Amino acid sequence: MRTGKSARASAPASIGNLAVGFDVLGLAFDAARDQVIARPSETPGVQLGRVSGLVDSLPGEVEHNCALAAARAVLDAAGAGFGVVLDVDKGVPLSAGMGGSAASAVAAAGAVNALLDTPFDLEPLLPLAMEGERVSADPPPWDNVMASLYGGLVLAARLDPPLIRPLPLPQGLSCLLWHPDRKVETQAARALLSDTVPLTTAVEHARNLAGFIAACHSGELELFASGLCDILIEPQRLPLLPELSALQEAALSAGALGCSFSGSGPSIFALMPDDRFDAVKAAMQVALNAADLTATAYTAPLVSQGLKVEVLP
Amino acid sequence: MRTGKSARASAPASIGNLAVGFDVLGLAFDAARDQVIARPSETPGVQLGRVSGLVDSLPGEVEHNCALAAARAVLDAAGAGFGVVLDVDKGVPLSAGMGGSAASAVAAAGAVNALLDTPFDLEPLLPLAMEGERVSADPPPWDNVMASLYGGLVLAARLDPPLIRPLPLPQGLSCLLWHPDRKVETQAARALLSDTVPLTTAVEHARNLAGFIAACHSGELELFASGLCDILIEPQRLPLLPELSALQEAALSAGALGCSFSGSGPSIFALMPDDRFDAVKAAMQVALNAADLTATAYTAPLVSQGLKVEVLP
Repeated sequence: MRTGKSARASAPASIGNLAVGFDVLGLAFDAARDQVIARPSETPGVQLGRVSGLVDSLPGEVEHNCALAAARAVLDAAGAGFGVVLDVDKGVPLSAGMGGSAASAVAAAGAVNALLDTPFDLEPLLPLAMEGERVSADPPPWDNVMASLYGGLVLAARLDPPLIRPLPLPQGLSCLLWHPDRKVETQAARALLSDTVPLTTAVEHARNLAGFIAACHSGELELFASGLCDILIEPQRLPLLPELSALQEAALSAGALGCSFSGSGPSIFALMPDDRFDAVKAAMQVALNAADLTATAYTAPLVSQGLKVEVLP
Repeated sequence: MRTGKSARASAPASIGNLAVGFDVLGLAFDAARDQVIARPSETPGVQLGRVSGLVDSLPGEVEHNCALAAARAVLDAAGAGFGVVLDVDKGVPLSAGMGGSAASAVAAAGAVNALLDTPFDLEPLLPLAMEGERVSADPPPWDNVMASLYGGLVLAARLDPPLIRPLPLPQGLSCLLWHPDRKVETQAARALLSDTVPLTTAVEHARNLAGFIAACHSGELELFASGLCDILIEPQRLPLLPELSALQEAALSAGALGCSFSGSGPSIFALMPDDRFDAVKAAMQVALNAADLTATAYTAPLVSQGLKVEVLP
């Protein structure tokens, strides 16, 4: 414990799945960040301090609060002889499909980690942050947590033991995300999914992902766009937001390379060459108006930093 | 038609699926090649000439001969005003899971193509060679044909319209293939497959493929080995060769990065770092002996040329 010192950490929103990478890919989306200040306390365990930002209050119980749960996992793993009080500033909307719970978990894990005499590296910190994500979904999906922690595009190549790898991205791309005025709980979105899929769908899904990963490395946009779609999960979740089809058509017609749910929705992302950003945004706004759907637009560069940590005096 | 001239073409064996890439990946395997000499004829259509190599005879009907069917597809697509006689030299065993029918189809398509005034490029030649592969399986799988045509490791990123991309491979790897003394018909191997798979299997399969493709680009062998396995198809086809499990264990224990059926079997391939080749081969030979299975070993560099064409005077 660094006596008397506090730590401030922040972590970005993220786009889970990124259409073609259900439970496999996550893209950090630095249009919004959650921030956590961890202050050491003589009282063992974790306590919630000030809450600010998009919400006025958060649950104070560890089992219902992503930040507290992640913080406790870090303290326990380190065998820390002190407790922490966490101030949480929510910048990422909750239940939006923007990785809000993961951002809180990563920021809290990172802030508490900075108070340790021997902080964990990112790799061992990941499963501890996952314990925070477990509050919102059990078993917790990796995609948002790893993206929020590492930044950029991240692949979970293996879960046990974890094999997490950042991926390159073609240059000159922009990301647009619309957060419609709807809420979707991750658990409810999971419940929509069938336990089995046709073999042909599994093969075509894998084909799309293979092409997408190859395009991330080669930078070829035709290959990138060909792979950037979701035939596995999206059709099953369309009832959550039937308007998605019209929005996709608008986005792709205006030059987007792909458009789908962010995570389990209801937010929708589109990726496009920088010079198509304005056209795609305008076309999607027209489609939103036609569907009588109110939504907030966010944008951020594709290349971004994940966890940021600062030790306070 | 180049009056009086003939053309000789050859195409290599290939490893379909390459474990993790069912119907998506193919790896040319230049340990054996089929060769076709196409001689122009005043008689329209395609005729079988001399047959040599591993077999003494082949069916003379177009609908039962991969080489003739591919040749006819090329003549028809070109609107050629002449016929051809094909001499076929079989170097690739049939019904071995080594892409023998694809090698014949590609070699025949390539030889006839060379007789045209305006030959097709590789991309438009691919669907014509596929018409030869259709003789052995309908609908014809792409993996062997594209690998045999392009050489090296090849990804079918999209089927319609085709989007075929060569992939890089980590350096310093060797490939070993065992052809056991058994026969498996592609159609029979397909018939073993269930129409549906668990969603979790589809996701983990896609994850493996994503990691494998990333490793092909990055060269990281841990990632390569992690992805190079088949949880989608191999378990369903294990009854074709129950000995596979023991062979895999022997190969992986001796340092192989992956080991599975080549195509629909019964041949088995293993990839390994060059310096593990002898150890893997010895370990697999011990396992073959223990299983009382007779098999012929083949080896070839991973980087290889696909179709080779020579116009004869």
